[in-house]
Amino acid sequence: TVNGDRLWQSLMDLADIGAYDDERTGLRGVNRLALTDTDATGRRQVIAWMEQAGLTVRIDRMGNIYGRREGTDPTAAPVLTGSHIDSVATAGAFDGCLGVLGGIEVVRTLNEHGITTRRPVEVGIFTEEEGVRFGTDMLGSAVAAGRLTLEYAHALTDRDGLTLGGELARTGFNGPADVRLDSPHAYVECHIEQGPVLAENGVEIGVVTGVQGISWQEITIHGRAAHAGTTPTHMRVDAGLAAAQIIVHLRALVDSGEYGDLRATVGHLIVHPDLTNIVPARAELTVDLRNPDDVQMARAEEALAACLRDLEDSRPGLSLTVRRMAKTAYVPFDEGLQKVIAQAADDHGLEHISLLSGAGHDAQEIAALCPTAMIFVRGEYDGISHNPREYSTPEACAHGVDVLATTLLRLADQ
Amino acid sequence: TVNGDRLWQSLMDLADIGAYDDERTGLRGVNRLALTDTDATGRRQVIAWMEQAGLTVRIDRMGNIYGRREGTDPTAAPVLTGSHIDSVATAGAFDGCLGVLGGIEVVRTLNEHGITTRRPVEVGIFTEEEGVRFGTDMLGSAVAAGRLTLEYAHALTDRDGLTLGGELARTGFNGPADVRLDSPHAYVECHIEQGPVLAENGVEIGVVTGVQGISWQEITIHGRAAHAGTTPTHMRVDAGLAAAQIIVHLRALVDSGEYGDLRATVGHLIVHPDLTNIVPARAELTVDLRNPDDVQMARAEEALAACLRDLEDSRPGLSLTVRRMAKTAYVPFDEGLQKVIAQAADDHGLEHISLLSGAGHDAQEIAALCPTAMIFVRGEYDGISHNPREYSTPEACAHGVDVLATTLLRLADQ
Ligand SMILES: NC(=O)NCCC(=O)O
Ligand SMILES: NC(=O)NCCC(=O)O
Repeated sequence: TVNGDRLWQSLMDLADIGAYDDERTGLRGVNRLALTDTDATGRRQVIAWMEQAGLTVRIDRMGNIYGRREGTDPTAAPVLTGSHIDSVATAGAFDGCLGVLGGIEVVRTLNEHGITTRRPVEVGIFTEEEGVRFGTDMLGSAVAAGRLTLEYAHALTDRDGLTLGGELARTGFNGPADVRLDSPHAYVECHIEQGPVLAENGVEIGVVTGVQGISWQEITIHGRAAHAGTTPTHMRVDAGLAAAQIIVHLRALVDSGEYGDLRATVGHLIVHPDLTNIVPARAELTVDLRNPDDVQMARAEEALAACLRDLEDSRPGLSLTVRRMAKTAYVPFDEGLQKVIAQAADDHGLEHISLLSGAGHDAQEIAALCPTAMIFVRGEYDGISHNPREYSTPEACAHGVDVLATTLLRLADQ
Repeated sequence: TVNGDRLWQSLMDLADIGAYDDERTGLRGVNRLALTDTDATGRRQVIAWMEQAGLTVRIDRMGNIYGRREGTDPTAAPVLTGSHIDSVATAGAFDGCLGVLGGIEVVRTLNEHGITTRRPVEVGIFTEEEGVRFGTDMLGSAVAAGRLTLEYAHALTDRDGLTLGGELARTGFNGPADVRLDSPHAYVECHIEQGPVLAENGVEIGVVTGVQGISWQEITIHGRAAHAGTTPTHMRVDAGLAAAQIIVHLRALVDSGEYGDLRATVGHLIVHPDLTNIVPARAELTVDLRNPDDVQMARAEEALAACLRDLEDSRPGLSLTVRRMAKTAYVPFDEGLQKVIAQAADDHGLEHISLLSGAGHDAQEIAALCPTAMIFVRGEYDGISHNPREYSTPEACAHGVDVLATTLLRLADQ
C-alpha cells in the first residue's frame, strides 16, 4: 500500500498553485488553465517531485511530460500511467492531479520497497486535457496518440488570440521529444469519478468500462443591433433571443428521452455589444453533448442542426455558423485490463463496481495505442466536479492509488 | 434657415472621435461611452465649437455642459436646447449629437444674421444619457432636474468598478456649477427618431407627444457549477438555462399581446465561469421593458416577477436577485410647445406628424422643470439606431434644425 499522507500532501501542495477564494461559498478553488503562468508553475513543481522520485523527465513538442523509471528489461515497452494537471477556472484539487500525483506516489512506494520491475514505468502529464482554454479537450493525449496533428494543436487560439504553440514557447514547455508516443504495454489512469454513481452504490472503487461520446460545437449567431426602445418587435433580428431558444430547445431534446442517455450543456454564452438598450447583434455559445451511444449522439446532433436551420428559416436576417471544436466517439476500455484492476481492488479488500465514464479522459486517446483502462475514486457531494466543492477523502484517494499500484506492478512484470 | 453643410460637417467631425470600423458590415461606427477618454475628447471639441460661436460655457458637478448666449432682458429665464454626445458602443453619428450640434448651429445662424433675442439661449450637453456605462440612462439630466441625487449618480460604477464620480474627476469634467438647473422658460430637443414611423408615413418632421415608460432591471441567477459530462440532468442547477428561459418567456409576454404595446429586450447577458464543459454557476442579464401605458408596464413587471418566482420555486438551489437600474414613467410633453413646433414646421413647408418616442431622452427629465417638447428627424433603414447603420440625410438633419431654430427664436422672444 502507498503512503496516503504523502499523496494527500502532494495534492494539497499542488492545489495551492492557482488557488483562489470563492466569495460566495467561502470555499477554496483552483484556477490553473493550461499553459498559463500558473500551470507552468504547477508543471515545474510536479517535475521537481518526479526528479526527487528518481524519474528521468522528458517533454515533447506538445508540452506533454513523461517521467520514466527504468525496468530490468531494456527492450520491454513501458507501462504508462498519468493524467493531467491543467484545470478549469472553477476547479477543485483532484481532477487530473490524482492520476499524476498518484503515479508519482506509486513510484515513491516502489523505490522505498526497493522493488524493480521488468518493464519501465512511466508517469505522463498531458497538456490541455480540459479543453477550456484552447477549445479542444484531451488535446495533448490526442496528439500523442496521433488522432490530431501537432500543427492543428499548435494553431489553436485562446480567447485573447494567443496560440497554443506560442504559449508552449512562452512557458518553456515546447520540449524536444517526439510527440508520437511509442505504443506502451498498457495505460492505466486513476481519476476521480466526477459523478454520483460510486457514492450512490456505496463503493469506493470504479472499474471504468469506457468513455461516452463527446461532441463540442461553437455556434455563432448574427442578428442585427437595434434600439431597445424604438425597434418594433416584428422588425428585430435578436441574436440573444435565438441563443436562448437554442438553449431551451436543447433541454427539451434531453427531456424528451428520445436520444438515449443524452446530456446537453451550454457552458459558454456571450452576446454583443452586451448593452442594456441594444438588441444583441451577435451571440456566441458552445454546445457540449454527451452520449454513450454513437447512433443516438448522431441523432441528437442532427436534431440540433435541424433546430438551427428552423431558426434561420423563421427569421430573415438571422444567420448561424457552426464550428466543430471537438468530437470523440464512445471508447470501450480493454476487458483484460478491467479484470486486472478488479482483481487488484479485491486484493486490497475494496468493493468495486463497473461503470462508464461521463467525462472525457486522456485514457480514451491512449486507448488507440495500447490496452487501456481506468480506476475511478469516489467523490463527496454527489461527486460534484469542475466546482471548488469537488472533494474526495484522503482514504478514498489512497485506496484508488493502492489499486493503481497493484495494477501497475502486475502489468510491469508481464 | 440654418447652414446645412456646416451642421453636417460638425456631425461628421464629431463622429471621427471614437470612430471604429465594423468588420462585418464594412460600416464606420462610433463608440464613445460616457466619460471615457474618447468622450472627453468629444466634449473638448464641442466646447471649442461653443466658444467659437461666442457661447459662455459652464460645467456642473455632473459634468453637464451649458453654453449660453445672452439675451437683451437680463432677468428673463433662458430657452434651453441640447441633448447628449455620449454614445453606445455600436453607435452612429446622429443619436444625441444632432441635438447638441443643431443647437450650436442655431446660435451660429443667429450670430450671422445679427439677431438678438429677449431671453438667453442655452445649449446643454447632458452626461451619460445612454446609461450603458453606469447603468442608469438620462442620468445627467435626471440629476439636473432633481429626480436623482448627485450622490446616487457619483456612486454608480461601470463594469470595471470605476465610479462615475471618479471618472468625472479623471477626465476633468467635475465642474463647479450647481447641478440643479434653474427652471428654464422652455426646453426643446431635436433628435433623430431612431425608429421607423416617420419613414413609414413619408414625412420628415415628427412632433413628439411624449416618451413611453422605461424599466431597466438587472437579474442575477445563482445556480451550481458542475461537470457537463458527468452530472445527470436532474441534478443540475443551471443558471444559464434559467437565463434562457427568462429571455424566451419575455418574448412570449410580448407576443401574447396582453401587456399593451410592450417591448422587451435582454441586451446584456453573461454566464460564469463561461466554459464549454461547465454547467453555468451564475448568469447575469438585464431586462429593458418599454410601455407607453404605465398600468400595462406595471402588469408586465409583475408578470416578469412571477416568472422569476416560478423559476426559483421549480428548481431547488436556484436563487435569483433583482436590482433596479432605471425606471421612468410615461412622460407627456407640453401641448402648447408641440403647437409651436408644428407651426415652425409649417413655416418651413415641412410635413409633420405627431408621434410618441420609443427611446428615452433628456427632454423627459427636463420636462419636470419647464414646458418641454421634441422635434424628431427621420432616419433611413427603418430608422435603425444604436447601430453603425444609423443614418439621416444631410437634408433631413438641416430641416430638423431649421424647425428647431424657428421654434427657439419664437420662444426666446416670448
Ligand atoms: N475529466 C475531465 O474533466 N475532462 C475534461 C473533458 C470533459 O469535459 O469531459
Ligand atoms: N435616445 C436614446 O437612445 N436614449 C438612450 C436611452 C434609451 O435606451 O432609450
